[in-house]
Amino acid sequence: MIRRVVLIGSGNVAESLAQAIASCEELTLVQLYARNETRGKEVAALSHCPHTADPQQLDPTADLYLLSVSDRAVEELAQQLPIPQTAIVAHTAGSVALDALRPYPHRAILYPFQGFSAGRRIDFRTVPLFLEASEEDDLEALTAFAQLLSHQVYEADSARRKRIHLAGVIANNFVNQLYAAATDLLHEADLPYEVLKPLIHETASKAIDAAHPALVQTGPAKRGDRATQEGHLALLNDKPELKAIYELISQQIWETSKKI
Amino acid sequence: MIRRVVLIGSGNVAESLAQAIASCEELTLVQLYARNETRGKEVAALSHCPHTADPQQLDPTADLYLLSVSDRAVEELAQQLPIPQTAIVAHTAGSVALDALRPYPHRAILYPFQGFSAGRRIDFRTVPLFLEASEEDDLEALTAFAQLLSHQVYEADSARRKRIHLAGVIANNFVNQLYAAATDLLHEADLPYEVLKPLIHETASKAIDAAHPALVQTGPAKRGDRATQEGHLALLNDKPELKAIYELISQQIWETSKKI
Repeated sequence: MIRRVVLIGSGNVAESLAQAIASCEELTLVQLYARNETRGKEVAALSHCPHTADPQQLDPTADLYLLSVSDRAVEELAQQLPIPQTAIVAHTAGSVALDALRPYPHRAILYPFQGFSAGRRIDFRTVPLFLEASEEDDLEALTAFAQLLSHQVYEADSARRKRIHLAGVIANNFVNQLYAAATDLLHEADLPYEVLKPLIHETASKAIDAAHPALVQTGPAKRGDRATQEGHLALLNDKPELKAIYELISQQIWETSKKI
Repeated sequence: MIRRVVLIGSGNVAESLAQAIASCEELTLVQLYARNETRGKEVAALSHCPHTADPQQLDPTADLYLLSVSDRAVEELAQQLPIPQTAIVAHTAGSVALDALRPYPHRAILYPFQGFSAGRRIDFRTVPLFLEASEEDDLEALTAFAQLLSHQVYEADSARRKRIHLAGVIANNFVNQLYAAATDLLHEADLPYEVLKPLIHETASKAIDAAHPALVQTGPAKRGDRATQEGHLALLNDKPELKAIYELISQQIWETSKKI
Protein backbone atom coordinates (compact mmCIF):
# COMPACT_ATOMS: atom_id res chain seq x y z
CA MET A 1 0.00 0.00 0.00
CA ILE A 2 1.33 3.44 -0.92
CA ARG A 3 1.00 6.02 1.82
CA ARG A 4 4.33 7.84 2.06
CA VAL A 5 5.59 9.58 -1.07
CA VAL A 6 8.80 11.37 -1.99
CA LEU A 7 8.38 13.57 -5.04
CA ILE A 8 11.40 14.28 -7.22
CA GLY A 9 11.32 17.33 -9.48
CA SER A 10 10.08 20.92 -9.44
CA GLY A 11 8.55 21.49 -12.87
CA ASN A 12 4.90 22.21 -13.64
CA VAL A 13 3.85 18.55 -13.41
CA ALA A 14 5.74 18.11 -10.13
CA GLU A 15 4.09 21.22 -8.69
CA SER A 16 0.63 20.01 -9.62
CA LEU A 17 1.33 16.48 -8.34
CA ALA A 18 2.82 17.76 -5.08
CA GLN A 19 -0.29 19.75 -4.29
CA ALA A 20 -2.58 16.88 -5.23
CA ILE A 21 -0.69 14.45 -2.98
CA ALA A 22 -0.36 16.92 -0.11
CA SER A 23 -4.07 17.68 -0.13
CA CYS A 24 -5.03 14.00 0.00
CA GLU A 25 -5.81 12.89 3.56
CA GLU A 26 -4.74 9.28 3.00
CA LEU A 27 -1.28 10.28 1.72
CA THR A 28 1.79 11.94 3.17
CA LEU A 29 4.14 13.92 0.98
CA VAL A 30 7.27 13.10 2.99
CA GLN A 31 9.74 15.21 1.03
CA LEU A 32 10.36 17.08 -2.18
CA TYR A 33 13.74 16.50 -3.79
CA ALA A 34 14.77 19.04 -6.44
CA ARG A 35 18.18 20.11 -7.62
CA ASN A 36 16.86 23.59 -8.41
CA GLU A 37 16.89 25.16 -4.91
CA THR A 38 14.66 28.13 -5.70
CA ARG A 39 11.93 26.20 -7.49
CA GLY A 40 12.28 23.27 -5.09
CA LYS A 41 11.62 25.50 -2.08
CA GLU A 42 8.72 27.16 -3.91
CA VAL A 43 6.99 23.87 -4.74
CA ALA A 44 7.70 22.44 -1.26
CA ALA A 45 6.19 25.54 0.35
CA LEU A 46 3.05 25.27 -1.80
CA SER A 47 2.55 21.70 -0.63
CA HIS A 48 3.83 22.21 2.96
CA CYS A 49 6.58 19.57 2.88
CA PRO A 50 10.35 19.64 3.48
CA HIS A 51 12.68 20.18 0.56
CA THR A 52 16.17 18.89 -0.13
CA ALA A 53 18.64 19.31 -2.97
CA ASP A 54 21.13 16.85 -1.49
CA PRO A 55 20.85 13.22 -2.70
CA GLN A 56 22.34 12.04 0.62
CA GLN A 57 19.44 13.64 2.48
CA LEU A 58 16.82 11.73 0.46
CA ASP A 59 14.23 10.34 2.90
CA PRO A 60 14.59 6.52 2.83
CA THR A 61 11.19 5.76 4.40
CA ALA A 62 8.77 6.33 1.51
CA ASP A 63 6.66 3.67 -0.25
CA LEU A 64 6.83 5.51 -3.56
CA TYR A 65 9.52 7.68 -5.17
CA LEU A 66 7.89 9.64 -7.95
CA LEU A 67 10.25 11.14 -10.53
CA SER A 68 8.52 14.03 -12.20
CA VAL A 69 11.34 15.43 -14.30
CA SER A 70 11.92 16.06 -18.00
CA ASP A 71 11.90 13.01 -20.30
CA ARG A 72 15.64 13.30 -20.84
CA ALA A 73 16.53 13.53 -17.14
CA VAL A 74 14.66 10.42 -15.91
CA GLU A 75 17.29 7.78 -16.61
CA GLU A 76 20.32 9.65 -15.31
CA LEU A 77 18.57 10.89 -12.17
CA ALA A 78 17.19 7.43 -11.36
CA GLN A 79 20.75 6.08 -11.33
CA GLN A 80 22.13 8.84 -9.12
CA LEU A 81 19.59 8.77 -6.31
CA PRO A 82 19.96 6.39 -3.34
CA ILE A 83 16.37 5.14 -3.51
CA PRO A 84 15.77 2.01 -1.39
CA GLN A 85 15.35 -1.14 -3.49
CA THR A 86 12.18 -2.11 -1.63
CA ALA A 87 10.22 0.99 -2.71
CA ILE A 88 8.29 1.56 -5.93
CA VAL A 89 10.08 3.98 -8.26
CA ALA A 90 7.83 5.60 -10.84
CA HIS A 91 8.34 8.30 -13.45
CA THR A 92 5.74 10.55 -15.10
CA ALA A 93 7.25 10.81 -18.59
CA GLY A 94 4.87 9.64 -21.30
CA SER A 95 7.57 8.93 -23.87
CA VAL A 96 10.07 7.14 -21.58
CA ALA A 97 9.96 3.34 -21.15
CA LEU A 98 9.96 1.42 -17.88
CA ASP A 99 13.56 0.37 -18.66
CA ALA A 100 14.84 3.82 -17.78
CA LEU A 101 14.37 2.82 -14.12
CA ARG A 102 16.51 -0.30 -14.58
CA PRO A 103 18.44 -0.05 -11.27
CA TYR A 104 15.22 -0.70 -9.32
CA PRO A 105 13.25 -3.94 -9.03
CA HIS A 106 9.93 -2.10 -8.50
CA ARG A 107 9.64 0.05 -11.62
CA ALA A 108 6.50 1.93 -12.63
CA ILE A 109 5.08 4.76 -14.72
CA LEU A 110 2.34 7.21 -13.82
CA TYR A 111 1.69 9.37 -16.88
CA PRO A 112 -0.68 12.31 -16.36
CA PHE A 113 -2.44 13.21 -19.63
CA GLN A 114 -2.73 16.98 -19.47
CA GLY A 115 -0.80 20.04 -20.58
CA PHE A 116 0.67 21.48 -17.40
CA SER A 117 2.10 24.96 -17.52
CA ALA A 118 3.52 27.53 -15.14
CA GLY A 119 0.98 29.58 -13.26
CA ARG A 120 -2.05 27.59 -14.43
CA ARG A 121 -3.96 25.74 -11.73
CA ILE A 122 -5.32 22.34 -12.82
CA ASP A 123 -7.79 20.27 -10.84
CA PHE A 124 -5.74 17.09 -10.63
CA ARG A 125 -8.83 14.93 -10.05
CA THR A 126 -9.83 15.58 -13.67
CA VAL A 127 -6.45 14.50 -15.09
CA PRO A 128 -6.45 11.01 -16.66
CA LEU A 129 -3.56 8.92 -15.26
CA PHE A 130 -1.99 6.08 -17.25
CA LEU A 131 -0.17 3.42 -15.27
CA GLU A 132 2.39 0.72 -16.00
CA ALA A 133 4.42 -1.36 -13.53
CA SER A 134 7.02 -4.12 -13.72
CA GLU A 135 5.27 -6.17 -11.00
CA GLU A 136 1.57 -7.06 -10.80
CA ASP A 137 1.44 -6.22 -7.05
CA ASP A 138 2.99 -2.82 -7.68
CA LEU A 139 0.40 -2.08 -10.37
CA GLU A 140 -2.34 -2.77 -7.84
CA ALA A 141 -0.76 -0.51 -5.23
CA LEU A 142 -0.13 2.20 -7.81
CA THR A 143 -3.72 1.97 -9.07
CA ALA A 144 -5.07 2.46 -5.55
CA PHE A 145 -2.71 5.42 -5.10
CA ALA A 146 -3.67 6.96 -8.47
CA GLN A 147 -7.37 6.62 -7.72
CA LEU A 148 -6.88 8.79 -4.65
CA LEU A 149 -5.64 11.55 -6.96
CA SER A 150 -7.80 11.26 -10.08
CA HIS A 151 -11.24 10.11 -11.27
CA GLN A 152 -9.72 8.62 -14.44
CA VAL A 153 -7.11 5.88 -14.00
CA TYR A 154 -6.12 3.46 -16.80
CA GLU A 155 -3.41 0.92 -17.52
CA ALA A 156 -1.15 1.67 -20.46
CA ASP A 157 1.93 -0.08 -21.79
CA SER A 158 4.41 1.72 -24.04
CA ALA A 159 2.41 1.15 -27.25
CA ARG A 160 -0.78 2.48 -25.69
CA ARG A 161 1.00 5.46 -24.14
CA LYS A 162 2.50 6.37 -27.50
CA ARG A 163 -0.95 6.39 -29.09
CA ILE A 164 -2.34 8.49 -26.23
CA HIS A 165 0.53 10.92 -26.59
CA LEU A 166 -0.17 11.23 -30.32
CA ALA A 167 -3.86 11.95 -29.61
CA GLY A 168 -2.72 14.61 -27.14
CA VAL A 169 -0.40 16.26 -29.64
CA ILE A 170 -3.28 16.47 -32.13
CA ALA A 171 -5.88 17.78 -29.65
CA ASN A 172 -3.47 20.17 -27.93
CA ASN A 173 -0.51 21.30 -30.07
CA PHE A 174 -2.25 21.00 -33.46
CA VAL A 175 -5.46 22.61 -32.26
CA ASN A 176 -3.41 25.44 -30.78
CA GLN A 177 -1.64 25.92 -34.13
CA LEU A 178 -5.04 26.26 -35.85
CA TYR A 179 -5.99 28.89 -33.24
CA ALA A 180 -2.74 30.69 -34.12
CA ALA A 181 -3.40 30.52 -37.89
CA ALA A 182 -6.94 31.87 -37.40
CA THR A 183 -5.58 34.66 -35.19
CA ASP A 184 -3.06 35.65 -37.87
CA LEU A 185 -5.87 35.81 -40.47
CA LEU A 186 -7.82 38.15 -38.18
CA HIS A 187 -4.76 40.32 -37.55
CA GLU A 188 -4.37 40.68 -41.33
CA ALA A 189 -7.91 42.06 -41.38
CA ASP A 190 -6.95 44.46 -38.54
CA LEU A 191 -9.04 42.55 -36.04
CA PRO A 192 -7.90 41.58 -32.54
CA TYR A 193 -7.55 38.02 -31.24
CA GLU A 194 -10.43 38.88 -28.84
CA VAL A 195 -12.83 38.28 -31.75
CA LEU A 196 -11.92 34.59 -31.83
CA LYS A 197 -12.06 33.79 -28.11
CA PRO A 198 -15.83 33.23 -27.72
CA LEU A 199 -15.73 30.81 -30.68
CA ILE A 200 -12.73 28.91 -29.27
CA HIS A 201 -14.54 28.59 -25.95
CA GLU A 202 -17.84 27.46 -27.45
CA THR A 203 -16.21 25.00 -29.86
CA ALA A 204 -14.40 23.28 -27.00
CA SER A 205 -17.44 23.31 -24.68
CA LYS A 206 -19.73 21.93 -27.36
CA ALA A 207 -17.33 19.10 -28.21
CA ILE A 208 -16.87 18.28 -24.51
CA ASP A 209 -20.65 18.00 -24.09
CA ALA A 210 -20.94 15.65 -27.09
CA ALA A 211 -20.57 11.86 -27.15
CA HIS A 212 -18.10 12.25 -30.06
CA PRO A 213 -16.81 15.51 -31.58
CA ALA A 214 -17.84 14.39 -35.08
CA LEU A 215 -21.49 14.45 -33.96
CA VAL A 216 -21.44 18.24 -33.51
CA GLN A 217 -19.53 19.15 -36.67
CA THR A 218 -20.92 22.02 -38.79
CA GLY A 219 -19.73 24.31 -41.59
CA PRO A 220 -19.05 24.37 -45.33
CA ALA A 221 -16.96 21.16 -45.45
CA LYS A 222 -19.66 19.17 -43.64
CA ARG A 223 -22.36 20.61 -45.94
CA GLY A 224 -20.25 20.02 -49.04
CA ASP A 225 -20.58 23.75 -49.81
CA ARG A 226 -17.95 24.04 -52.55
CA ALA A 227 -18.67 27.70 -53.37
CA THR A 228 -17.75 28.85 -49.86
CA GLN A 229 -14.72 26.55 -49.80
CA GLU A 230 -13.48 27.96 -53.14
CA GLY A 231 -13.84 31.47 -51.73
CA HIS A 232 -11.75 30.52 -48.69
CA LEU A 233 -9.09 28.80 -50.79
CA ALA A 234 -8.77 31.95 -52.92
CA LEU A 235 -7.94 33.88 -49.73
CA LEU A 236 -5.14 31.42 -48.99
CA ASN A 237 -3.28 31.73 -52.29
CA ASP A 238 -0.37 33.42 -50.55
CA LYS A 239 -0.28 30.74 -47.82
CA PRO A 240 0.28 27.44 -49.65
CA GLU A 241 0.84 25.37 -46.45
CA LEU A 242 -2.34 26.63 -44.78
CA LYS A 243 -4.17 26.11 -48.08
CA ALA A 244 -3.00 22.47 -48.15
CA ILE A 245 -4.14 22.03 -44.52
CA TYR A 246 -7.51 23.59 -45.45
CA GLU A 247 -7.99 21.10 -48.28
CA LEU A 248 -6.91 18.05 -46.26
CA ILE A 249 -8.99 18.78 -43.16
CA SER A 250 -12.04 19.77 -45.26
CA GLN A 251 -11.74 16.43 -47.05
CA GLN A 252 -11.54 14.61 -43.70
CA ILE A 253 -14.63 16.42 -42.40
CA TRP A 254 -16.55 15.47 -45.54
CA GLU A 255 -15.51 11.82 -45.27
CA THR A 256 -16.25 11.66 -41.55
CA SER A 257 -19.70 13.17 -42.12
CA LYS A 258 -20.58 10.39 -44.55
CA LYS A 259 -19.70 7.75 -41.93
CA ILE A 260 -21.89 9.03 -39.07
CA MET B 1 -32.36 55.37 -33.55
CA ILE B 2 -33.33 51.72 -33.38
CA ARG B 3 -35.75 50.88 -30.60
CA ARG B 4 -38.48 48.67 -32.11
CA VAL B 5 -37.36 45.43 -33.77
CA VAL B 6 -39.13 42.74 -35.78
CA LEU B 7 -37.13 39.53 -35.92
CA ILE B 8 -37.59 37.21 -38.90
CA GLY B 9 -36.59 33.57 -38.51
CA SER B 10 -36.68 30.81 -35.89
CA GLY B 11 -33.31 29.06 -36.16
CA ASN B 12 -30.61 28.91 -33.49
CA VAL B 13 -29.26 32.39 -34.29
CA ALA B 14 -32.77 33.85 -34.30
CA GLU B 15 -33.54 32.26 -30.94
CA SER B 16 -30.39 33.66 -29.38
CA LEU B 17 -30.94 37.11 -30.91
CA ALA B 18 -34.58 37.20 -29.86
CA GLN B 19 -33.69 36.58 -26.24
CA ALA B 20 -30.85 39.11 -26.33
CA ILE B 21 -33.14 41.80 -27.78
CA ALA B 22 -36.06 40.97 -25.49
CA SER B 23 -33.90 41.15 -22.39
CA CYS B 24 -32.50 44.59 -23.31
CA GLU B 25 -34.38 47.38 -21.53
CA GLU B 26 -33.79 49.96 -24.26
CA LEU B 27 -35.25 47.71 -27.00
CA THR B 28 -38.66 46.26 -27.80
CA LEU B 29 -38.99 43.01 -29.68
CA VAL B 30 -42.25 43.94 -31.41
CA GLN B 31 -42.86 40.65 -33.21
CA LEU B 32 -41.32 37.42 -34.36
CA TYR B 33 -42.11 36.39 -37.93
CA ALA B 34 -41.41 32.75 -38.78
CA ARG B 35 -42.94 30.50 -41.41
CA ASN B 36 -42.34 27.47 -39.19
CA GLU B 37 -45.34 27.78 -36.80
CA THR B 38 -44.05 25.36 -34.16
CA ARG B 39 -40.55 26.80 -33.89
CA GLY B 40 -41.87 30.35 -34.34
CA LYS B 41 -44.18 30.01 -31.37
CA GLU B 42 -41.41 28.39 -29.32
CA VAL B 43 -38.92 31.19 -29.96
CA ALA B 44 -41.58 33.88 -29.47
CA ALA B 45 -42.57 32.34 -26.14
CA LEU B 46 -38.94 32.29 -24.97
CA SER B 47 -38.65 35.99 -25.68
CA HIS B 48 -42.22 36.95 -24.65
CA CYS B 49 -43.27 38.52 -27.95
CA PRO B 50 -46.11 37.90 -30.42
CA HIS B 51 -45.55 35.54 -33.34
CA THR B 52 -46.94 35.52 -36.86
CA ALA B 53 -46.48 33.26 -39.87
CA ASP B 54 -48.57 35.48 -42.14
CA PRO B 55 -46.63 38.07 -44.20
CA GLN B 56 -49.74 40.29 -44.24
CA GLN B 57 -49.66 40.47 -40.44
CA LEU B 58 -46.08 41.75 -40.36
CA ASP B 59 -45.91 44.66 -37.90
CA PRO B 60 -45.19 47.80 -39.98
CA THR B 61 -44.01 49.98 -37.07
CA ALA B 62 -40.48 48.68 -36.38
CA ASP B 63 -37.24 50.62 -36.91
CA LEU B 64 -35.34 47.45 -37.77
CA TYR B 65 -36.35 44.24 -39.55
CA LEU B 66 -33.73 41.63 -38.77
CA LEU B 67 -33.67 38.61 -41.10
CA SER B 68 -32.03 35.75 -39.26
CA VAL B 69 -32.59 32.93 -41.73
CA SER B 70 -30.35 30.54 -43.66
CA ASP B 71 -27.93 32.07 -46.18
CA ARG B 72 -29.97 30.72 -49.08
CA ALA B 73 -33.32 32.05 -47.84
CA VAL B 74 -32.30 35.70 -47.29
CA GLU B 75 -32.81 37.03 -50.81
CA GLU B 76 -36.13 35.37 -51.56
CA LEU B 77 -37.65 36.17 -48.18
CA ALA B 78 -36.55 39.82 -48.36
CA GLN B 79 -38.49 40.16 -51.63
CA GLN B 80 -41.65 38.52 -50.29
CA LEU B 81 -42.12 40.48 -47.08
CA PRO B 82 -43.98 43.82 -47.02
CA ILE B 83 -41.31 45.62 -45.00
CA PRO B 84 -41.74 49.42 -44.98
CA GLN B 85 -39.16 51.24 -47.16
CA THR B 86 -38.31 53.65 -44.36
CA ALA B 87 -37.03 50.94 -41.98
CA ILE B 88 -33.57 49.39 -41.85
CA VAL B 89 -33.55 45.82 -43.18
CA ALA B 90 -30.60 43.74 -41.99
CA HIS B 91 -29.64 40.10 -42.40
CA THR B 92 -27.31 38.01 -40.21
CA ALA B 93 -25.75 35.80 -42.90
CA GLY B 94 -21.95 36.09 -42.99
CA SER B 95 -21.60 34.87 -46.57
CA VAL B 96 -24.45 36.90 -48.15
CA ALA B 97 -23.80 40.36 -49.62
CA LEU B 98 -25.76 43.54 -48.93
CA ASP B 99 -27.21 43.26 -52.46
CA ALA B 100 -29.47 40.41 -51.40
CA LEU B 101 -31.63 43.10 -49.75
CA ARG B 102 -31.92 45.06 -53.03
CA PRO B 103 -35.64 45.96 -52.71
CA TYR B 104 -34.89 48.16 -49.69
CA PRO B 105 -33.10 51.51 -49.57
CA HIS B 106 -31.84 50.93 -45.98
CA ARG B 107 -29.87 47.69 -46.28
CA ALA B 108 -27.58 46.34 -43.59
CA ILE B 109 -25.80 43.27 -42.24
CA LEU B 110 -25.32 42.23 -38.61
CA TYR B 111 -23.15 39.10 -38.63
CA PRO B 112 -22.74 37.36 -35.25
CA PHE B 113 -19.43 35.48 -35.10
CA GLN B 114 -20.25 32.41 -33.05
CA GLY B 115 -21.38 28.82 -33.61
CA PHE B 116 -24.99 28.75 -32.47
CA SER B 117 -26.63 25.38 -31.98
CA ALA B 118 -29.89 24.00 -30.71
CA GLY B 119 -30.17 23.72 -26.95
CA ARG B 120 -26.92 25.57 -26.20
CA ARG B 121 -27.29 28.86 -24.36
CA ILE B 122 -24.82 31.53 -25.42
CA ASP B 123 -24.23 34.81 -23.59
CA PHE B 124 -24.92 37.14 -26.50
CA ARG B 125 -22.89 39.96 -24.92
CA THR B 126 -19.75 37.94 -25.63
CA VAL B 127 -20.57 37.41 -29.33
CA PRO B 128 -18.59 39.65 -31.71
CA LEU B 129 -20.95 41.43 -34.14
CA PHE B 130 -19.80 42.57 -37.60
CA LEU B 131 -21.79 45.35 -39.24
CA GLU B 132 -22.23 46.74 -42.73
CA ALA B 133 -24.83 49.20 -44.00
CA SER B 134 -25.67 50.87 -47.31
CA GLU B 135 -26.07 54.30 -45.66
CA GLU B 136 -23.69 56.01 -43.22
CA ASP B 137 -26.58 57.06 -40.92
CA ASP B 138 -27.89 53.52 -40.79
CA LEU B 139 -24.45 52.21 -39.83
CA GLU B 140 -24.43 54.62 -36.90
CA ALA B 141 -27.90 53.54 -35.76
CA LEU B 142 -27.04 49.88 -36.22
CA THR B 143 -23.78 50.30 -34.27
CA ALA B 144 -25.63 51.86 -31.32
CA PHE B 145 -28.15 48.98 -31.48
CA ALA B 146 -25.44 46.29 -31.69
CA GLN B 147 -23.57 47.81 -28.74
CA LEU B 148 -26.67 47.28 -26.62
CA LEU B 149 -26.39 43.55 -27.37
CA SER B 150 -22.64 42.84 -27.41
CA HIS B 151 -19.34 44.06 -25.98
CA GLN B 152 -17.59 43.49 -29.32
CA VAL B 153 -18.92 45.43 -32.32
CA TYR B 154 -16.92 45.96 -35.52
CA GLU B 155 -17.47 47.18 -39.06
CA ALA B 156 -16.91 44.64 -41.83
CA ASP B 157 -17.44 44.82 -45.56
CA SER B 158 -17.77 41.64 -47.66
CA ALA B 159 -14.02 41.10 -47.99
CA ARG B 160 -13.45 41.43 -44.25
CA ARG B 161 -16.43 39.19 -43.45
CA LYS B 162 -15.10 36.49 -45.77
CA ARG B 163 -11.76 36.52 -43.96
CA ILE B 164 -13.49 36.40 -40.57
CA HIS B 165 -15.60 33.49 -41.74
CA LEU B 166 -12.47 31.64 -42.88
CA ALA B 167 -10.85 32.21 -39.47
CA GLY B 168 -14.02 30.83 -37.90
CA VAL B 169 -14.00 27.70 -40.04
CA ILE B 170 -10.39 27.04 -39.01
CA ALA B 171 -10.91 27.67 -35.28
CA ASN B 172 -14.25 25.88 -35.12
CA ASN B 173 -14.79 23.22 -37.83
CA PHE B 174 -11.12 22.30 -38.31
CA VAL B 175 -10.37 22.24 -34.59
CA ASN B 176 -13.41 20.03 -34.08
CA GLN B 177 -12.15 17.65 -36.79
CA LEU B 178 -8.83 17.35 -34.94
CA TYR B 179 -10.77 16.55 -31.75
CA ALA B 180 -12.58 13.84 -33.74
CA ALA B 181 -9.34 12.39 -35.15
CA ALA B 182 -7.78 12.27 -31.66
CA THR B 183 -10.92 10.61 -30.30
CA ASP B 184 -10.75 7.92 -33.00
CA LEU B 185 -7.10 7.24 -32.10
CA LEU B 186 -8.10 6.77 -28.45
CA HIS B 187 -10.97 4.49 -29.40
CA GLU B 188 -8.53 2.34 -31.36
CA ALA B 189 -6.58 1.96 -28.10
CA ASP B 190 -9.84 1.02 -26.33
CA LEU B 191 -9.94 4.30 -24.45
CA PRO B 192 -13.02 6.48 -24.08
CA TYR B 193 -13.39 10.05 -25.35
CA GLU B 194 -13.54 11.11 -21.66
CA VAL B 195 -9.74 10.81 -21.57
CA LEU B 196 -9.40 13.71 -24.01
CA LYS B 197 -11.88 16.16 -22.48
CA PRO B 198 -9.67 17.71 -19.77
CA LEU B 199 -6.98 18.36 -22.39
CA ILE B 200 -9.47 19.95 -24.81
CA HIS B 201 -10.71 22.19 -22.01
CA GLU B 202 -7.25 23.23 -20.82
CA THR B 203 -5.93 23.82 -24.37
CA ALA B 204 -8.79 26.21 -25.12
CA SER B 205 -8.60 27.97 -21.72
CA LYS B 206 -4.85 28.44 -21.95
CA ALA B 207 -5.08 29.88 -25.47
CA ILE B 208 -7.90 32.21 -24.42
CA ASP B 209 -5.76 33.53 -21.54
CA ALA B 210 -2.81 34.20 -23.87
CA ALA B 211 -2.11 37.31 -25.95
CA HIS B 212 -1.61 35.05 -28.99
CA PRO B 213 -2.06 31.24 -29.17
CA ALA B 214 1.44 30.81 -30.62
CA LEU B 215 2.91 32.14 -27.34
CA VAL B 216 1.65 29.10 -25.39
CA GLN B 217 2.58 26.41 -27.92
CA THR B 218 4.36 23.30 -26.58
CA GLY B 219 5.14 19.78 -27.76
CA PRO B 220 7.47 17.82 -30.04
CA ALA B 221 6.97 20.01 -33.14
CA LYS B 222 7.79 23.18 -31.18
CA ARG B 223 10.86 21.51 -29.61
CA GLY B 224 11.96 20.08 -32.97
CA ASP B 225 11.90 16.62 -31.34
CA ARG B 226 12.20 14.49 -34.50
CA ALA B 227 12.41 11.15 -32.65
CA THR B 228 8.96 11.60 -31.07
CA GLN B 229 7.53 12.86 -34.37
CA GLU B 230 8.90 9.84 -36.27
CA GLY B 231 7.28 7.57 -33.68
CA HIS B 232 3.94 9.31 -34.20
CA LEU B 233 4.19 9.16 -37.99
CA ALA B 234 4.84 5.42 -37.79
CA LEU B 235 1.51 5.07 -35.94
CA LEU B 236 -0.23 6.85 -38.81
CA ASN B 237 0.98 4.62 -41.64
CA ASP B 238 -2.54 3.30 -42.16
CA LYS B 239 -4.00 6.85 -42.16
CA PRO B 240 -2.24 8.68 -45.02
CA GLU B 241 -4.46 11.78 -44.85
CA LEU B 242 -4.00 12.25 -41.10
CA LYS B 243 -0.29 11.59 -41.57
CA ALA B 244 -0.12 14.38 -44.17
CA ILE B 245 -1.99 16.70 -41.78
CA TYR B 246 0.46 15.73 -39.00
CA GLU B 247 3.44 16.67 -41.17
CA LEU B 248 1.96 19.94 -42.43
CA ILE B 249 0.82 21.24 -39.03
CA SER B 250 4.07 20.15 -37.33
CA GLN B 251 5.99 22.09 -39.98
CA GLN B 252 3.79 25.15 -39.36
CA ILE B 253 4.36 24.94 -35.60
CA TRP B 254 8.11 24.74 -36.13
CA GLU B 255 8.11 27.72 -38.49
CA THR B 256 5.86 29.77 -36.21
CA SER B 257 8.10 29.03 -33.22
CA LYS B 258 11.10 30.48 -35.06
CA LYS B 259 9.22 33.73 -35.69
CA ILE B 260 8.20 34.50 -32.10
